[in-house]
Amino acid sequence: MEIIPVALADNAYPIYLGENLLSQKHLFEPHIQGTQVCIVSNETVAPLYLSTLKKTLRDRNVIEVILPDGEAYKSMASAEHIFDRLIDNRFHRTCTLIALGGGVIGDVTGFAAACYQRGVDFIQVPTTLLAQVDASVGGKTAVNHPRGKNMIGAFHHPQCVIMDLNTLETLPTREYRAGFAEIVKHALIADSSYFDDLVNSVDALMNKSPQCLHTVICRSCQIKAKIVSGDPKEQGERILLNFGHTFAHAIETCSGYGTYLHGEAVSIGIAMAADLSQRLGLLQPAAKRRILDLLQHVELPIAPPPELTLLQLKSAMALDKKMLEGGLQFILLQQIGHGIVKKAVLEDMLDETLIATGCKLS
Amino acid sequence: MEIIPVALADNAYPIYLGENLLSQKHLFEPHIQGTQVCIVSNETVAPLYLSTLKKTLRDRNVIEVILPDGEAYKSMASAEHIFDRLIDNRFHRTCTLIALGGGVIGDVTGFAAACYQRGVDFIQVPTTLLAQVDASVGGKTAVNHPRGKNMIGAFHHPQCVIMDLNTLETLPTREYRAGFAEIVKHALIADSSYFDDLVNSVDALMNKSPQCLHTVICRSCQIKAKIVSGDPKEQGERILLNFGHTFAHAIETCSGYGTYLHGEAVSIGIAMAADLSQRLGLLQPAAKRRILDLLQHVELPIAPPPELTLLQLKSAMALDKKMLEGGLQFILLQQIGHGIVKKAVLEDMLDETLIATGCKLS
Repeated sequence: MEIIPVALADNAYPIYLGENLLSQKHLFEPHIQGTQVCIVSNETVAPLYLSTLKKTLRDRNVIEVILPDGEAYKSMASAEHIFDRLIDNRFHRTCTLIALGGGVIGDVTGFAAACYQRGVDFIQVPTTLLAQVDASVGGKTAVNHPRGKNMIGAFHHPQCVIMDLNTLETLPTREYRAGFAEIVKHALIADSSYFDDLVNSVDALMNKSPQCLHTVICRSCQIKAKIVSGDPKEQGERILLNFGHTFAHAIETCSGYGTYLHGEAVSIGIAMAADLSQRLGLLQPAAKRRILDLLQHVELPIAPPPELTLLQLKSAMALDKKMLEGGLQFILLQQIGHGIVKKAVLEDMLDETLIATGCKLS
Repeated sequence: MEIIPVALADNAYPIYLGENLLSQKHLFEPHIQGTQVCIVSNETVAPLYLSTLKKTLRDRNVIEVILPDGEAYKSMASAEHIFDRLIDNRFHRTCTLIALGGGVIGDVTGFAAACYQRGVDFIQVPTTLLAQVDASVGGKTAVNHPRGKNMIGAFHHPQCVIMDLNTLETLPTREYRAGFAEIVKHALIADSSYFDDLVNSVDALMNKSPQCLHTVICRSCQIKAKIVSGDPKEQGERILLNFGHTFAHAIETCSGYGTYLHGEAVSIGIAMAADLSQRLGLLQPAAKRRILDLLQHVELPIAPPPELTLLQLKSAMALDKKMLEGGLQFILLQQIGHGIVKKAVLEDMLDETLIATGCKLS
């Protein structure tokens, strides 16, 4: 088992990474202060892993909330459902919430933990590749608004993150690939040799080689933990982690939550950001080609849905948290392994990229 | 004009206290970073002061949200209404929310600011005595759950607090008295000479003597700011500010939000906490009498509604954030001016206090 520390100014927490961790009581114990525990999961994950986790926590007073599966349930209604259950069971400020599932479960559970009685403890048990490499590190929690992804949320760090590699065995291929998009993102913004390694090991990774998986998850978490530690509230460098996400969030909002997996939308967003980077004279054409090749090799999408128009996408993008007042700001690539923030991008350039990557003119 | 600094480890903000502050543009300007401003107010306060504030902020892009008046609207639905308006108007992360109203408006606006895009700026403009001396200092924001007051919330500090004493001129007598209950609380937990001064100046205060008001608001804010500075997340001394509130919240929950003003429930809670303090041999009977006399002198209630039963009240109290797992914890008085935390209070003693102060046995 590997322990990856996430160091923050006012608190720090460990990520535990290894096999069969769900049944290891001693990992959970030091991070749960009270007797009251609420496990939040969904209808897909709960039948697979809930009983194991409940057995591990059998000394505690455990209740559960099982949400339907999917991005559509990353909503205020789901958070309110959790609040109702906690209040019905008279859960106190010393309770602990445990998120057992993917990014949606982690985000909505983290948000509920951030707000219940002005903040209670929570533990992340991510069961998807995407949640393990990305969503469960960094303290961002949120629910979606019908007109904007992650519009309502809080910064709230978990007590610990427990990543059981065995949970990936049951992960559907489509979800597994979606997680790969965030891994590619980490390499692109921060580490060119990591990108080279991904190109070389992509087939082993797609075959869920345990050793390869272990290395990649560890490396992605270390990149993300390092960036987050230096900028916990996203006032500087952390914004690089949003590479591809301004596009991705707009695509998700326009398509209706659930049409694309988040990682699939990120893949399209990476393709768009790479195009814009090249169009602005930053990224070499050959580098852009390598990025698209890697995404396509694992059958991730690199073009938006055919019915999406330029106007629809730009309208959804205008609400993005990363686009500051009165200017178009994008996270782009100077080269592979080096993300940068580019302000005052000309709207014409953006239009060219959107059209070139597959948006309809009208 | 007085400036009271609130010093916190990671940020600090000023309280401005004086007359005709709503129209002083230079007070607001340095605390608003972007052009987008959303004023949240209610149907009672808006007709009185909204136009003045909008005139002061006429250089900004100002929108408004006017909620119905009352504790019943300190709800998630109200917060969601604010989110909708912000998103409809494409408000960015650099926007500022301004709470123009009493404690309800301050709490719900602060909570919306804490969660919108994971946290945007807000400014408190409290227009009631209670909000000026209590609700607008300390960073606690929340909405109520149908089964528990302030159950959903966040710690989120304002950029500044602007207290315009003129807004108290239109405050109904009942609301004005309710604010006095929190003032008495400050004196009771922290400063016996302040209590003596309140006894001596109560009639002048009830006549809204400007000089007296200025002194009292300033002194209460200083007490609260000092306590909050030392313990921003309520992990220690800050809990003293909840004196009377475990009882008060339960009374509010049992009576239905809106039956009692918060300050009225606090007055009853103070009477109950004083009784329990005396019953446990802490507070002298004469001191308890002085407290009740002061509350009664301004016609604040000191007994719960006649239909309330012991069981109802205790059931609502069991959910209180301040009552830790597995024990009865109360904030009590060692003497006037000296609040203490008392753990493991016997349930029999609690029952005696509740019956003695007016709860029905069944």
